[in-house]
Amino acid sequence: MTSLLHSLPDDILLLGPGPSNTHPEVYAALGKPTLGHLDPVFIEIMDAIKGQIQELAHTDNELSIPISGTGSAGMEASIVNFVEPGDRVLILVNGVFGTRMVDVAQRLGAEVDALEFEWGTPVIPDQVAEQLMSNRYDLIGVVHAETSTGVRNPLPELAAVIKDSGALFLVDSVTGLGGLPVRLDDWGVDIFYSGTQKCLGCPPGLAPFSASARAVEKLKNRKTKVPNWYLDLSMLVNYWEGAKRAYHHTAPINMLYGLHAALDVVLQEGEEAVVARHQAAHEHLVAGLDPLGLDLFVEEGYRLPMLNAITVPEGVDEAAVRKALRMDHHIEIGAGLGPLAGKIWRIGLMGHNARPEVVDRFLEALRKVLS
Amino acid sequence: MTSLLHSLPDDILLLGPGPSNTHPEVYAALGKPTLGHLDPVFIEIMDAIKGQIQELAHTDNELSIPISGTGSAGMEASIVNFVEPGDRVLILVNGVFGTRMVDVAQRLGAEVDALEFEWGTPVIPDQVAEQLMSNRYDLIGVVHAETSTGVRNPLPELAAVIKDSGALFLVDSVTGLGGLPVRLDDWGVDIFYSGTQKCLGCPPGLAPFSASARAVEKLKNRKTKVPNWYLDLSMLVNYWEGAKRAYHHTAPINMLYGLHAALDVVLQEGEEAVVARHQAAHEHLVAGLDPLGLDLFVEEGYRLPMLNAITVPEGVDEAAVRKALRMDHHIEIGAGLGPLAGKIWRIGLMGHNARPEVVDRFLEALRKVLS
Repeated sequence: MTSLLHSLPDDILLLGPGPSNTHPEVYAALGKPTLGHLDPVFIEIMDAIKGQIQELAHTDNELSIPISGTGSAGMEASIVNFVEPGDRVLILVNGVFGTRMVDVAQRLGAEVDALEFEWGTPVIPDQVAEQLMSNRYDLIGVVHAETSTGVRNPLPELAAVIKDSGALFLVDSVTGLGGLPVRLDDWGVDIFYSGTQKCLGCPPGLAPFSASARAVEKLKNRKTKVPNWYLDLSMLVNYWEGAKRAYHHTAPINMLYGLHAALDVVLQEGEEAVVARHQAAHEHLVAGLDPLGLDLFVEEGYRLPMLNAITVPEGVDEAAVRKALRMDHHIEIGAGLGPLAGKIWRIGLMGHNARPEVVDRFLEALRKVLS
Repeated sequence: MTSLLHSLPDDILLLGPGPSNTHPEVYAALGKPTLGHLDPVFIEIMDAIKGQIQELAHTDNELSIPISGTGSAGMEASIVNFVEPGDRVLILVNGVFGTRMVDVAQRLGAEVDALEFEWGTPVIPDQVAEQLMSNRYDLIGVVHAETSTGVRNPLPELAAVIKDSGALFLVDSVTGLGGLPVRLDDWGVDIFYSGTQKCLGCPPGLAPFSASARAVEKLKNRKTKVPNWYLDLSMLVNYWEGAKRAYHHTAPINMLYGLHAALDVVLQEGEEAVVARHQAAHEHLVAGLDPLGLDLFVEEGYRLPMLNAITVPEGVDEAAVRKALRMDHHIEIGAGLGPLAGKIWRIGLMGHNARPEVVDRFLEALRKVLS
């Protein structure tokens, strides 16, 4: 053990935009004995993970697997497999991760329209409907839980608008899954990805992913090979599905143990209970901010329970507050990104951390730092 | 803990093509407390890993970082960043991983020549020299340790031939690093990647990577954006280098703890000792195969110490032997791939497993299964 690992602080509360603190069950899983990527026991775990993703995301999609990279690799896989050069893509943008989708799709030669909404406000379904009246798209993408602003985009309402457009419907729920309801089949979502290090309480490194039969059809009918060997789902399915599993790349075995354990923790508690716990922690935080004279940046009704953007008060050195919380109180919180840098703090209450006692520890520390 | 994880076998000896058994120090590291990806303590670990990669690969390359994916993501990153559509690429092919390089580069629009050598034999430097007399390339790629065949390609000799060609020199040493000497600067290697699950004794999931100043120059002068946001090194460097670290994607924190510990284990033992230990284990195996009437598939002088291809004798059901080893003796070995399917077994003696007592356990089990 190196001196750095030996002296790693073990009491940092991770209340930033993720990673959140890893669940104890997940730490235990990560250290389980490595098996071969074609071992029959490991294949049972792969199958179990597919079932867990289907259960938590409420989908019958056959193609429900973890991508071997972080949430951003999930985004990359979601676009590179289902978009070909010249395809018309609409991205609904109200934060960093919508912006990132635009960048990913443009790099792959798509013709991208970005429908922009003010950061900190939600995507407005009526404006999307209007856009669709005069434009046809092959794919429409949106972020469920915009981690950069704390906004929850209204997925069911957007789904209703997008349903008959003919476009594939792509949803990023890196921060939503395990803290907000996700209903892929009800909402008609065709392509979906998440991340492990938010509400699932697992370290970063994998992206739970799912694609509908319609999306798979598009993949099968591509005119060109997927220009990304590592993330090519048409080959990956031969490793993740069927009686005979064909080697593609060596799966990240121990991280997959961690994800399997993390999904089990969530499903054992039950989705309804997990969602209620995140909501309760959020409300506990909101109630505690008022006495400190602090406001949330996002309008009520569109706030994410697991990512709370607090407006930095005039005259307060926001970076100094974050530093004092980390150094004196062992609490990490997040800064604003892009146009929101310096304007908000981002407080994650994700997974294991969505508990009132965690909120109390944070509020007490914040009170001391601000006083 | 799920029943699957609870009952995971803990005595499987991983003597296939990788993953190898994870080192105990690495298991301990994987379970260390997750920190934020911008935490000052975590940034110290990132810097330490960069130094470890430089030390083990004998390079001063500034850009020496782990890629957030398995070895195949390292291959993808090595090509997508440094090859633009229309670039002329030469791949020296004598196995699955050279073939994979061709596929990756073609998908990205490169004009690829594959110089083919029989599987199980090494790349011949004179033939490469001949090819270079009448052709100019932007990049030349080769696999150091061809895991699919057990062949060690003669890197120093190839380096001498490629040196003045003007091409960037790309080397895959997924299976070599930590078991064979790797001398990036001496050999004039411009782009290099490895994997964690072979001789480093860490679970799969990361790809140690390094690029020379010449390669970085090519990256900086690209005419087009890298068509892969997740692996775009021109952005990744802003997270891995400099005083102010800019968020790109959330690094796989706990896997990086594992890699840091794994590299430390190797460097503490010392590269010379590690290489000698792999060679001794290999020789111990070869000596033990002879009494069993078994031969190695690769000619002496070009055999990989860490990946031993054994010719399956006439009339032996190779799959049944593998199954019996796994089920009755708890030993995993590898099958042949592609044209070598059914013709060879692949015996990995990697990292922690490159020890005479491990070889003895394998030989004893093999003797029983074959008798």
